[in-house]
Parts: sequence; C-alpha cells; structure tokens
Amino acid sequence: MSVNLAPPDPAALLPVPGVELGVAMAGIRKADRKDLLVVRLAPGTAVAGVFTQNRFCAAPVILARKHIRNAVRALVVNTGNANAGTGAQGIERAMLVCDALAGHLGCGAQQILPFSTGVIMEPLPAERIVAALPHALLSRDDWRSAAEAIMTTDTVPKAHSRRLRLSGGAAIVTGIAKGAGMIRPDMATMLAFVATDARVAPATLRRMARRVADRTFNCITVDGDTSTNDAFMLIATGRGPAASTRRDLLRLEAALTDVARSLAQAIVRDAEGATKFVTVEVALGRSVDECRRVAYAIAHSPLVKTAFFASDPNLGRILAAIGYSGVARLDASRVDLYIDGIRVARSGARDPHYREETAIAAMKKPEFTVRAVLNRGKAAATVWTCDLSFDYVKINAEYRS
Amino acid sequence: MSVNLAPPDPAALLPVPGVELGVAMAGIRKADRKDLLVVRLAPGTAVAGVFTQNRFCAAPVILARKHIRNAVRALVVNTGNANAGTGAQGIERAMLVCDALAGHLGCGAQQILPFSTGVIMEPLPAERIVAALPHALLSRDDWRSAAEAIMTTDTVPKAHSRRLRLSGGAAIVTGIAKGAGMIRPDMATMLAFVATDARVAPATLRRMARRVADRTFNCITVDGDTSTNDAFMLIATGRGPAASTRRDLLRLEAALTDVARSLAQAIVRDAEGATKFVTVEVALGRSVDECRRVAYAIAHSPLVKTAFFASDPNLGRILAAIGYSGVARLDASRVDLYIDGIRVARSGARDPHYREETAIAAMKKPEFTVRAVLNRGKAAATVWTCDLSFDYVKINAEYRS
Repeated sequence: MSVNLAPPDPAALLPVPGVELGVAMAGIRKADRKDLLVVRLAPGTAVAGVFTQNRFCAAPVILARKHIRNAVRALVVNTGNANAGTGAQGIERAMLVCDALAGHLGCGAQQILPFSTGVIMEPLPAERIVAALPHALLSRDDWRSAAEAIMTTDTVPKAHSRRLRLSGGAAIVTGIAKGAGMIRPDMATMLAFVATDARVAPATLRRMARRVADRTFNCITVDGDTSTNDAFMLIATGRGPAASTRRDLLRLEAALTDVARSLAQAIVRDAEGATKFVTVEVALGRSVDECRRVAYAIAHSPLVKTAFFASDPNLGRILAAIGYSGVARLDASRVDLYIDGIRVARSGARDPHYREETAIAAMKKPEFTVRAVLNRGKAAATVWTCDLSFDYVKINAEYRS
Repeated sequence: MSVNLAPPDPAALLPVPGVELGVAMAGIRKADRKDLLVVRLAPGTAVAGVFTQNRFCAAPVILARKHIRNAVRALVVNTGNANAGTGAQGIERAMLVCDALAGHLGCGAQQILPFSTGVIMEPLPAERIVAALPHALLSRDDWRSAAEAIMTTDTVPKAHSRRLRLSGGAAIVTGIAKGAGMIRPDMATMLAFVATDARVAPATLRRMARRVADRTFNCITVDGDTSTNDAFMLIATGRGPAASTRRDLLRLEAALTDVARSLAQAIVRDAEGATKFVTVEVALGRSVDECRRVAYAIAHSPLVKTAFFASDPNLGRILAAIGYSGVARLDASRVDLYIDGIRVARSGARDPHYREETAIAAMKKPEFTVRAVLNRGKAAATVWTCDLSFDYVKINAEYRS
C-alpha cells in the first residue's frame, strides 16, 4: 500500500547522457529478483554525496565516503543485504565487489562507489554479486528498471525526471530512490541517486548536494530511525550544457531540488504501512532549527501518528508533542494549530468556533497538512511524514521471517 | 493485557497514618466508574513533587506547582479528563474544585493540590467533581481502591507497599500510580503518589523526590511521549517515627525508591499493548548521560520495539539505534551486545559463536534484558521499556471512539 503514489511512467523518465545503467538478478537474498544495479559514468563525471551520520555506518558507506574523493567511474548497488554490522570482513567483501567491477571497467577499485541495502548483520554474498556483474554490464537498462532493482520493502519503484533549460541548451535531471523504513532526518533516504548531464564544477556540486539534501531528504521521517546505509548521490556527467552563469546554477539547483523532493516524498508515500501522507508545517518560530524541532516532535510522536491513522483530530496529542519538543521558553498560550485550513486551536486552547467534524473530514483524506504557528518569530520549517498503522507493526515484526 | 503484573493484594497495602483516602464516582467521562480520589493529609505533612516539563502543562499542574509551596492539606485527583490545553478556563475550573474542597476542609484553596488525567482539550466538568466531593469525603477507602480510582487505560491497578525500620521505630511507605501511554523520561509516570508516615524535613523530602524520580520514573519509556499532566508526589505525614539519623534517611530513601521503582515498572508492564517487559542496560560508557542516551535510543526505536514484539533478535536494528543515539565519537567497532546472558555482537559485529535460536528463545520470554557494553568508560544506566504491538496502535487509534 502507498499513498497517492503511482509507478513512474518509463516514457517520462529521461535518459541522462553519460550515465549507463545495467541491472541483474544476483540471487542475493531471493531468486528471480532484480537486486543488482551498476551505474557507469562517463569520464569526467562529477559526483557529490551525503552519507548517513550513524556511527554504525555500513561497510559500503565507509568505502564510498573514501572513494568519492577520486574520479568516480561507476556505482554498484545491491539490495537484499546491507553489509552493515559486519566488521572488517564487511569491508573486505565490499572491496571484492569494487575490485571485480574495476577489473571489468579497466579502472581502479578506488574509483567505484559501493552501496548496499537490506538486512543488517549478515555476511554479504560478494561472490554472487561478482558473478552477476558481467550480466549487469552487458544489459542496457532504463531508469525504471534501475529503480526496481534497488527496492527492498518498497511497494512502488521511485523515479522522477525533468528537463530544464540552461543558457547553453536543454539539460536533464533524473533520479531514483528507495526507502520504506528506517527513515529520518540527517540522512533521510536509504538510497537516492540523482543524475544530470549538466556540467558543474565538483566543488559547486558538493555544496548543491548538501543544500538539496537539507531541503528534501532531510525533511522526511517515517519512524525516526536513521539507517546505517543512507546515502544521497548527486551525479553530473557534463555531457550536456554547462551550468555556467549564476542563473544557470540557480535553475539547475531548483531542478535537482524538485526531483529530490519528489523522490523524498515518494519515500514517505510508500512508507511501511502508511495510509496517510502528512505535511507538518511550523511557522513564526524564532529559528528554522526550533521550527524543525517542533515539526519533528509532531512527526515522530507515536501517539500523534496513530491519531493520524485513525483520522482522529486528537489536538491534545499534537499540542503535547509541541510542548515536549524542547524549545526553550515556548509560550504554549500563544500557539495556534491548523488542520488543513481549519483553525482547531487558538492561543494554546481549543478554538471555540471549531467543530470536530470538519477536522475529521480533513483527516480522512489521504493527504492533509498540520500547521503549528508559534507566534514568536519569523522562521518556518516543513517536514513530511506518514501515519503509524497496524501494517507498520506487521511489516516490521515479520520482515525477517 | 499486561506483562507479569498482578493486581495488588489489598491486605499487603499498608495504611499510612496521617493519610485518609476517599473515592467517588463523579461520572466525569463514564458512569459507574470510580473517577475521583481525595487524599486528605494530617496537619504538618510535608509534600514534595516533580512535575512534567511539557510546555503545554495542564491547568492542574500549573496550580499544583504553585500550591505545593503552602501547607498542603489535601490532593484531589480526577480521571476521565486531563484539563490540559484548556487555557484560562481550565485554570478557573481547577480552582473551582480546589475552592469547593477547601470549603469542606476549612482550609484555603491554595492548600489543595489538584491532579487530572484523561482526555486532553476538553472542558473539565468541574460541577460534577464538586458534586461528588462530599461522597469522597464521607467514604473511607483503602489504597487498592485509590489505585483503581486513578486508572484510565490501565488494565491493572498499581500499588506497592513496604515497611521499614528507622531508629525511632517502624515506618510505612505506600504508593499508587497510573500510566499506560504517553510515558517518557523527565516525568515518566502520568501520576504517582507515594506516602510515608516517617517524619522528614520538607527540604530533605524535596531533594529525595528528585533523586527517587531520577532512579525510577525517569528510567521508563513506553512511546517517548511526555504527558502534559505527569506528576510524582512524595508525602511524609510525620505521624510515624522521625527519619533523624543519616542512616535513617538512607533507609527511608531506599524504601521510597523501592516502592517508586515497583510502581514505575508496573506502568511499563501495563503499557498500552505491551507483551514484553524489557530492561535496557548500557554499561562502560563515559558518562551516565551518554549511557542514558544510548538506552533511550534503543528503547524508543519503533523498529527495535516491533522486533521485541516479534521475538526477533534483529541485532542490526539495535546497533543502528546505538549508532544514531548522538554519542560523540562513539567507536562502533568496540561495542558488545548481549540479550540476557547471550553475547550476540562483539566488537560491533555479529559474534561468530552466537546461534540465533538462543536469542529467539530468550526474547520469547515475557521479560528479558538487552545489554550494550560501550567499552569506553565506567558509567552505566538502565531503562525499562516494552515492545510495540498491534494493540498499541489499536488502543491509540481507538482511544476516543
């Protein structure tokens, strides 16, 4: 189940010149399932990345973080096994894969970025991945197929694409992502890859990656769990027009943000057990940071999330979450609260004109907005989240069995 | 449903000289249900309290925090309505109740501590409470009955009692609590009242209240939500022996901690939907604070809690939670992890000698311990929590309907 999320139309997913995709069935965890993706990059491609902050980061994250300093020639992504919590052996096995792919491509292993997603603390079956690499290298796949190859508990492949006009001509941005659970700020997606054919200086691309992540993947939460494998990669092959003017750079960043936001929201729409897609807006706070704190307190509260599931405008739970969000000297008696356009609480108490039926009707929709107005400053922040349903428990209680 | 929690034996609950209990059915939310408790205190009783840190604290909390500075003569506790998020009107209604009770007792309204628990953001039906006060004042109830009168979604009344020997003779400690949901550190219980007949100076009692709360109610979590109404009250009537020597004070504090811990654990055992009672121990950290951070990260993770529910030793989820707990410079490759006595991870990776069946068997029990050893210092901390089950979602999705 997912909330208002259709599989991407393959025809709408534009190929990115300089990027070659190859998919294979390596049988990593299940047979007859696409579970390996190789992304080959044209020489001169710039790659920037944002990685999980989890101290237990996975072996491939440790390697990718190191290898990204070099001229990257390919990404290799497997599902079914996260190669996390696997110690020194995990690093060795991820290096086996890098070595094998580098051998095929005639480059150094340190020019390969490995990514893994799936079950944690089980040894990576590197030999199966290595055996399937030739198949992935021989096949010519599209982005839809690539999005499918990186799915784990996702029910819908996630991909988004758009064209933009730079001063030197038309450019393309296409991205894919996978999510489903263990989604949290400070590295929201488990894995997301966004590529453009525009030409951008590596240092510029690095700054863009950080800003784009902050406005998209770092604004979503499903269950507050930060994964050991989260990574967001931004790829600029340079085979298309250069983003040379300031205006070009702004346009390119806007397009990248647009694609990344669509992917980030798709992750929430397809979150484990989600039946509602909820936008949490916090306005008129003193700083963006305190607005984000309040938004995340609402978005992480299991009591609020079960009320979302039940279409129950349990205002007390939302106000309680605002109250314990840790914002210093927050004056509860100045807070207003809205569900969609309906003002449900005014000055910290129930709005006398509010009739509960209207909020119930709003919350019965698959998408609605909760808006808290702190009335103590000018800053704002937005977070996207989902409800907590029976199915979240079911999926996570049964994932390994 | 609850985990290894029997209702208290009324015969084992010792009356506390100087405390008179009266219960009534005020019909606050449901008819024919004990929902009002009046606790009358002998003159000269010392009362100390620890209140919720939630910025949206309820009207009764605002009043109780103020009134506790005076010579307290009675506590009045209602269930069914939390009188939270009710603005100035909420304060007025809580004061109506204090005024009425003060009239009956011939004291000032500022000598009454009001407490409310139940649904948030609905107007307190003060007139029903006022109407039921005479009945509560006429009845002579025991602690078991008092524990029943403060239940909301609790399935089992929570009370604990013990005797201790001070240099001046035998003293008694008896307490009651209610919990079920919205349980979190920094004011863990929704409501807990612990009384002793020992004589203690008010300033000493205040320091004890803080220390006892830190070692008991502030070590539990169900869903990470801090309630707007949480309060822990420590009452010393002085009708029994004085706690005069240093040794007496240590003994009394140990007995109070013992009763409070039993009540705190009872709250977790009876948590909404709980099927497992889990002790999370973190050892060999650099500070108690970082050990608590790690313990709470484990205890709050919805992914870890659903794995507890499924008796699934999903070590990766536990290690991932440790990894994102925010402990600076934590070296994941030094962390060991145990489930009951079984070492499941060593130096950050799966223990090669570990066989999963043994951990599954341990987790199938209704109570087990997760122990993380950080190997970077000498501090330790313990947190008690429960699993996240279908019933948690069910109870919280349906609470108001």
